[in-house]
Amino acid sequence: MKTILRGTGKTVVIEDGGPTVILGERINPTGKSRLAAALLAGDLEIVRQEAIAQVAAGADILDVNVGAAGVDEVDLLPKAVRLVLETVEVPVAIDTPNGQALAAALAVHKEINPNGKPLVNSVNGEEASLARVLPLVAEYRTAVIGLCMDDEGIPKTPERRLEVARKIIARAESFGIPREDILIDCLALTMGADSKAGWVTLEAIRLVKEELGVNLALGASNVSFGLPDRETLNGVFLAIAISRGVNCPIVDAAKVRPYILAADLALGRDEYAMRYIRAFRQRKQA
Amino acid sequence: MKTILRGTGKTVVIEDGGPTVILGERINPTGKSRLAAALLAGDLEIVRQEAIAQVAAGADILDVNVGAAGVDEVDLLPKAVRLVLETVEVPVAIDTPNGQALAAALAVHKEINPNGKPLVNSVNGEEASLARVLPLVAEYRTAVIGLCMDDEGIPKTPERRLEVARKIIARAESFGIPREDILIDCLALTMGADSKAGWVTLEAIRLVKEELGVNLALGASNVSFGLPDRETLNGVFLAIAISRGVNCPIVDAAKVRPYILAADLALGRDEYAMRYIRAFRQRKQA
Repeated sequence: MKTILRGTGKTVVIEDGGPTVILGERINPTGKSRLAAALLAGDLEIVRQEAIAQVAAGADILDVNVGAAGVDEVDLLPKAVRLVLETVEVPVAIDTPNGQALAAALAVHKEINPNGKPLVNSVNGEEASLARVLPLVAEYRTAVIGLCMDDEGIPKTPERRLEVARKIIARAESFGIPREDILIDCLALTMGADSKAGWVTLEAIRLVKEELGVNLALGASNVSFGLPDRETLNGVFLAIAISRGVNCPIVDAAKVRPYILAADLALGRDEYAMRYIRAFRQRKQA
Repeated sequence: MKTILRGTGKTVVIEDGGPTVILGERINPTGKSRLAAALLAGDLEIVRQEAIAQVAAGADILDVNVGAAGVDEVDLLPKAVRLVLETVEVPVAIDTPNGQALAAALAVHKEINPNGKPLVNSVNGEEASLARVLPLVAEYRTAVIGLCMDDEGIPKTPERRLEVARKIIARAESFGIPREDILIDCLALTMGADSKAGWVTLEAIRLVKEELGVNLALGASNVSFGLPDRETLNGVFLAIAISRGVNCPIVDAAKVRPYILAADLALGRDEYAMRYIRAFRQRKQA
């Protein structure tokens, strides 16, 4: 199953057995007070810098989220999407729970990059979310990330997360959205709060891949929250997730790309270890 | 399935879902010229130091291999086993291809630690190896590591490695060795030489665990040979291997234990992340 995304100058293909595709997470004010303050002031210079830095660090797609408290997303999100598209060539993921902001950003995306194909981040199993997001995904023929949570919250068992994934896919297909344009995110919660949390996610990944066969995103940086040596923990968790079928992790490329490339090599997806070796050399020079 | 090993003061249980058990690889002169020279001179001081250091670094079992060129293993291996048993409390793995040396070392082990239970490292699918090693394993009621290679060499496909594992287990069972005392090592070759090598091993692991259900050892340090950033590559490869059922990796505990503990936590085998956090604190103090 191939998910194809198109930026202004680069096309990205997400598929099993291919190189893991990195969705760069850093254009997001959550937990970043300097970025939040800049966004509130309408200043997008950090966004521009982060776009360049993340692509240099190996991000294949860039998430764009301007949802800081007090920010008018309907106004600012299209501007940020425009700036990122004008700055780098990779596809973007438009990240907002706000339907109006999403519609405005998609319209701008279409204007700037009429042959492009972005990712929408995200829909979930809540009825309101499905009703708000899926018509826009269908209208603009984008791909979409579906989060395994619904009106009852985030399920505690792998089987229930699979059920939510099933529901999202069925609903998306009813809007004419093809299955290859849906990436499921099984949701990684903090292992510091619940030491079984990693296992639940990894089991859900296995079940969803096995039954539904879709490509899988994964926001993976929170698993280590509150624990020491976060980089190792994120890297190892991600490697196991990749070996079970995650092919589009949402991460800080500068931090975890070495682990992702090591996982791709271990899984036989890097002929002559070329990507692994080249990335090592680039890090050494940087 | 539980493999139980007993040292002079510590019992180790290897089983699925339990903590990953680390077999410390450092008492082995391969590629260590200083240790090789000392062994040739009959000097076991480095062996003593390595025994202490590896247990401090988190090794649960210690491999004992004195096979340097020119060394009389029949004489030296029993002495090394005796020294390790007198120095630390953990179980040992007696590591030699020499049947006489193995017999002599097992006799000394029985004398020093009559209620102990060591691991024999290793038998493989070659007829000569099966005939030489299995009778001793049966006589001394030890556990044994079975390597997935035979008279035709190391199989290139996962399916053929599974076949060799089947053969070793069937033959061992015909000697009355219970399946829980057999650890299969699917063999990790260098990914620098063949970028599909990791995949072959990881697939073999999956097949062997699924069909035969045995506990799995894995000598994992060679996968990264000739490649940069070996520690990350070893750690990531090992994490994926553990997630597929390896529960007794043969490694340098000081180098890869952080990755192993991260994998155990990610897989829900470390309640309250206690082992992960404690090991981090110990490393910070060291």
